[in-house]
Amino acid sequence: MKIIRFINAQNGVSLGCDYRDSTASLLEGDMYASLKDTGKRIPVKKLLSPIIPINIMCIGLNYHEHARETGMEVPRYPALFMKNIAALNHPEEPIQIPRCCMNKPEVDFEMELAVVIGKAAKDVPEDRALDYVAGYTVGNDVSARRWQAHAGSKQWVRGKSYDTFCPIGPCLVTPDEIKDPQQLELVCRLNGEVMQQASTADMIFSVAQIIAYLSQDTTLRPGTLILTGTPAGVGFTRNPPVYLKQGDRMEMEIDRIGTLVNPVIDAP
Amino acid sequence: MKIIRFINAQNGVSLGCDYRDSTASLLEGDMYASLKDTGKRIPVKKLLSPIIPINIMCIGLNYHEHARETGMEVPRYPALFMKNIAALNHPEEPIQIPRCCMNKPEVDFEMELAVVIGKAAKDVPEDRALDYVAGYTVGNDVSARRWQAHAGSKQWVRGKSYDTFCPIGPCLVTPDEIKDPQQLELVCRLNGEVMQQASTADMIFSVAQIIAYLSQDTTLRPGTLILTGTPAGVGFTRNPPVYLKQGDRMEMEIDRIGTLVNPVIDAP
Repeated sequence: MKIIRFINAQNGVSLGCDYRDSTASLLEGDMYASLKDTGKRIPVKKLLSPIIPINIMCIGLNYHEHARETGMEVPRYPALFMKNIAALNHPEEPIQIPRCCMNKPEVDFEMELAVVIGKAAKDVPEDRALDYVAGYTVGNDVSARRWQAHAGSKQWVRGKSYDTFCPIGPCLVTPDEIKDPQQLELVCRLNGEVMQQASTADMIFSVAQIIAYLSQDTTLRPGTLILTGTPAGVGFTRNPPVYLKQGDRMEMEIDRIGTLVNPVIDAP
Repeated sequence: MKIIRFINAQNGVSLGCDYRDSTASLLEGDMYASLKDTGKRIPVKKLLSPIIPINIMCIGLNYHEHARETGMEVPRYPALFMKNIAALNHPEEPIQIPRCCMNKPEVDFEMELAVVIGKAAKDVPEDRALDYVAGYTVGNDVSARRWQAHAGSKQWVRGKSYDTFCPIGPCLVTPDEIKDPQQLELVCRLNGEVMQQASTADMIFSVAQIIAYLSQDTTLRPGTLILTGTPAGVGFTRNPPVYLKQGDRMEMEIDRIGTLVNPVIDAP
C-alpha cells in the first residue's frame, strides 16, 4: 500500500491510499497500529509528509561511491547523526536557503532512501530487522556544508537542522510492496539534470544492518525516521561545486515509491 | 515555581508544585500554555522527568575548565549534537550500563544545567532569549566514551543515545526563580565523593547565547530540551579513569533547583 497524508476538503488532515486524479481512498486508524481502507474517495487538497517523525536519525557515508568522492574513510560502524524534528518539510513545499547560509552558497542536497520504524525495536537482530519497518519513502538530507564542517567539534547536527531541511514523501510504501530495500534505483534531478543515480545495492550498511545497529541497547520507537545515507553526486564534491539557489527545483525519484519534488527559495 | 511531574495515587500522571512530605499541590493546564495551582494537595507515588522532551539538543565543551581537561580546542561556535528522545530517564530510576559497553568499562557521567524551551523560538536575539525559557532542571548527559569516539565519522550521537542515558529532574524551576542562569553552583557526587563542582559563570557560551545560536533560521519548539554542557571532572579525563558500574549512585545538585539522584545497574 502507498499511504499518503494530506489536507482534505475540510482543511483537516487525513490518511489515504490509491492516490490519483487529486483524490485518495480514505484510510482510518493509526499509522502504526491498524489502518483500514474505507474505500471512500475524497479530494486531496495538498500532500503532506507521509509521517510526522518523533526522531530523525541519519546515516552518513553509506554508499561506497559517495565515500570515495568525499575522500573520507569508509566507516567501521554506521556514522550516526540526527536532525531537529522541526526541520521536517513536505512535498512541493520550498526548501529555504537560511539567511545564515547566504553569505557564500553552501546549501547542498542529499537524496536518500528513508525508512520509518513501525513498532518499538530494541536489540533487533539483522535477520528480523525489516519486520519493524512501517514503510519506505524518499528523503532529502539538506545540508549546509560550512556549518556542517565548521560548527563546533565537527558535529554535523547544526548544519543539518535548519528549518525546511528535511523534506520527505510523496508517500509511505509498506514493506509488502518492497520486499528487498537493497534493490531500489534512485535518481536525483536538479532543474531536470541528473545529479545522483544509484542503486541501494551500493549501500555499505544495509537497511537491516542499520536497524540492528541503531537498536542495540536502544529503543527505536514507532515514528522514528531513518535516512539511510546518500549516493555519489552531491553538490559540494563537484568541480565546480553546485549549491542550491532560489529558483531551483529538486526531483528525487525512487522506483516503487515515487518522486519527491521541492522548489528552492531564499528564506523570507 | 518548582514544577514536578509524577505518578499519582490512581497511577495516572499529574503535574504539581510545592512538593513536600510525599505530596504536592495539583497543577492543572498545559506546561507550555497556562498552569494553574489548584491548591489541592495529592499524594506523589513516584517522581517522573519533569517534562517529556520533543528534541534533546546537547552542547559539548561549554566550560573553559572542561575544554582544558579534554585537551580539545575551545569551539568558535557551540558544539551541537543530539540524543534519541527515547534515552529519557527519570529521577531515582537506574542508569543502565548497555551490554555493548560491558566489554571494557566506558560509561561516563556529565552533569549539566538543562533548559526547557516554553514557546516557539526562531531567530531570537540574545537579549530576549531567556523569555523563551519554560524552566531549568538538572540533566545527566550519560556518555559511552568508546562509542562516542569510535562510531562512524566521529559523530557523538551513537555513544550518547543508549536507553536511560538522559536522566533529568527532579523538578522544573520557572525563570522567575532563576533570573540569572549564569550564577548557579553545580555539584556532582559519585558514591558521595565530589566529582564535579563548578559555577555556570564558567560557561563558554551562556544560556542566552546558546538559544540565540540554536534558533538561528531554526524553530525550537516548546518541549525542546537543551543540555548546556558539562564542567570539568568527568570520569574519562581522570587518572586512572573513573567509569560507572553496577551499584554506583549519582547525585547531581544545582542550587535553587534540587538534586537528581540515579543509581547505576547493568542492563538486564
